[in-house]
Amino acid sequence: MKDALRQKVQIQLDRKTKPVGSLGQLERVALDLCIAQRTDSPDVETIYGLIFAADHGVALDGVSAYPREVTAQMVLNIAGGGSAVATIGRANNVQIEVFDVGVDAEFVPAPMIHNVRVARGSGNIRVEPAMSEAELDAALDAGKRALHYAIERGAKTVAIGEMGIGNTTPASAISGAILGIEAAKITGPGTGVEGPAFARKVAIVEEAIARVSKYETPREILRQLGGFEIAAMAGVCLHAVETGVAVIVDGFITTAAALVAVRMRPEVRDQLIFSHCSAEGGHRILLNALDARPLVELQMRLGEGSGAVLCAPLIRAAAAVLKEMATFDEAGVSSKSAE
Amino acid sequence: MKDALRQKVQIQLDRKTKPVGSLGQLERVALDLCIAQRTDSPDVETIYGLIFAADHGVALDGVSAYPREVTAQMVLNIAGGGSAVATIGRANNVQIEVFDVGVDAEFVPAPMIHNVRVARGSGNIRVEPAMSEAELDAALDAGKRALHYAIERGAKTVAIGEMGIGNTTPASAISGAILGIEAAKITGPGTGVEGPAFARKVAIVEEAIARVSKYETPREILRQLGGFEIAAMAGVCLHAVETGVAVIVDGFITTAAALVAVRMRPEVRDQLIFSHCSAEGGHRILLNALDARPLVELQMRLGEGSGAVLCAPLIRAAAAVLKEMATFDEAGVSSKSAE
Repeated sequence: MKDALRQKVQIQLDRKTKPVGSLGQLERVALDLCIAQRTDSPDVETIYGLIFAADHGVALDGVSAYPREVTAQMVLNIAGGGSAVATIGRANNVQIEVFDVGVDAEFVPAPMIHNVRVARGSGNIRVEPAMSEAELDAALDAGKRALHYAIERGAKTVAIGEMGIGNTTPASAISGAILGIEAAKITGPGTGVEGPAFARKVAIVEEAIARVSKYETPREILRQLGGFEIAAMAGVCLHAVETGVAVIVDGFITTAAALVAVRMRPEVRDQLIFSHCSAEGGHRILLNALDARPLVELQMRLGEGSGAVLCAPLIRAAAAVLKEMATFDEAGVSSKSAE
Repeated sequence: MKDALRQKVQIQLDRKTKPVGSLGQLERVALDLCIAQRTDSPDVETIYGLIFAADHGVALDGVSAYPREVTAQMVLNIAGGGSAVATIGRANNVQIEVFDVGVDAEFVPAPMIHNVRVARGSGNIRVEPAMSEAELDAALDAGKRALHYAIERGAKTVAIGEMGIGNTTPASAISGAILGIEAAKITGPGTGVEGPAFARKVAIVEEAIARVSKYETPREILRQLGGFEIAAMAGVCLHAVETGVAVIVDGFITTAAALVAVRMRPEVRDQLIFSHCSAEGGHRILLNALDARPLVELQMRLGEGSGAVLCAPLIRAAAAVLKEMATFDEAGVSSKSAE
């Protein structure tokens, strides 16, 4: 069925008034959208940006350039419209929603912050599991509920993003453990740790990877090394299979979540649209492991879903090309001389 | 003044709630927009896509995969909303306007096709000048008038694009003559010429470049080798200096026009925002010659301004980051631990 749909869409694209294949990656994204949504008329009008926030026990070891309280402060900044993803979301007509799945703070209840909290921060992955079995289930379910929130409001496409001080460390550890890559190769500066702090970060990722070497399933690696926001994003990806929703993946951390989800359930891969390649070195390794070709490479390294939401218009343009461009017949344009 | 503005904008960007520099090329584009418009609050709300169409004497030598009548057919397809740039323009809220600066056809007068025609096609650049002095002045002026049309309707930013069967040949010849690069290196398949037809195209570009080797000024090279749409786009770029308008450059042919304009008047460079690197091999050579870093590289090779208009939302997002994102102080977010 997938091959038949791909062939049908390819024929439609080739009839458009342009040299065959001349819209390059835009045509490939149009195809990917069709596969994800299982239709030759993909719907990208309503796009939700689902941003998951959580704190990390390992952040107390000093793996980030920013203090832990920034997670909660940035949740308020995203919800209040001042953050990068909020700003880019407004510019690009993407509805941003923040889900507190594990922040270590008390928020005054606010309509723009969804309380799906599992716990106030995860365990320190250097020495202990990030979460219990029940907590993992709850975090995966938080992602599923967030996706349904968007679906109920008309979205067939969502972008995912995250906020969690210290969370490039669990993302590096998960990626290293799943792909069998050593810490030094998969760990980068994140928001900007340098010098001795960076060496410490690599050592912590190394310890965490070594600690879980006896575990094999991606689910168990996620439970051991994940953060709640990473598990919730994996939950979005997993549940996108049932619902036929296209998921726009952001940077290093969301791609780590997507990788876990694909390893848990390979069909997830068809739901994913990759937005950008970030400046975090490990991101390219993950993209290659997923055979993914992102749309842009702009040396961004911010997270929050900012790259995914930035690329929403490129994805909408791809769909518009498929749905709205005239064919040679419709437009009365002569085709190639040789034909 | 330029340095002072750049410094002022950089300080604004660095106060935003994000690690310094973490929005990568998006921050660079915000700076470039400010320089082009000479303000720290660039205006990208109203963007016009100015698409110039013309025929080429050299097309009769068989340098394109498409017959000459396609230029006129595609003008109608762009004006009618069915072409790639028209479709992407609608998706991206960019107003597309077509300017007939040298098409070899009679159109029924239509409000969406601006008649700024200089002649019905240019001379065959293999053997003769593309245009007379008076025609060159008229084509440059057509670009200026098109820019004013957009400015009068509120645009401080325009995208430029072109339609002209055969026009990668003059673009290659101009580029080769200006940069001193041989025909075989600067000539690509365009819309898709292959085999003996491609060899003929390279030979024609070679003849054209050899024919003008005695001329030195970029203006004379443009007159000898240009097409009317290329001259008109150079006219837009030249006049952007006076008016402080940012010009979004598209693919190989528009970049050749931009290159001529920069060589005619170096201040033009500050007006230019580069959208994409196309699949036409010569494009990267031109971008490097202009020290330009395009936003995306999507293997597009369609022209029409499609890549420039595709990138409009990325440019709007860059401006939104500068103008709307909260600062650390405004949002009450803690800055780096070390500071």
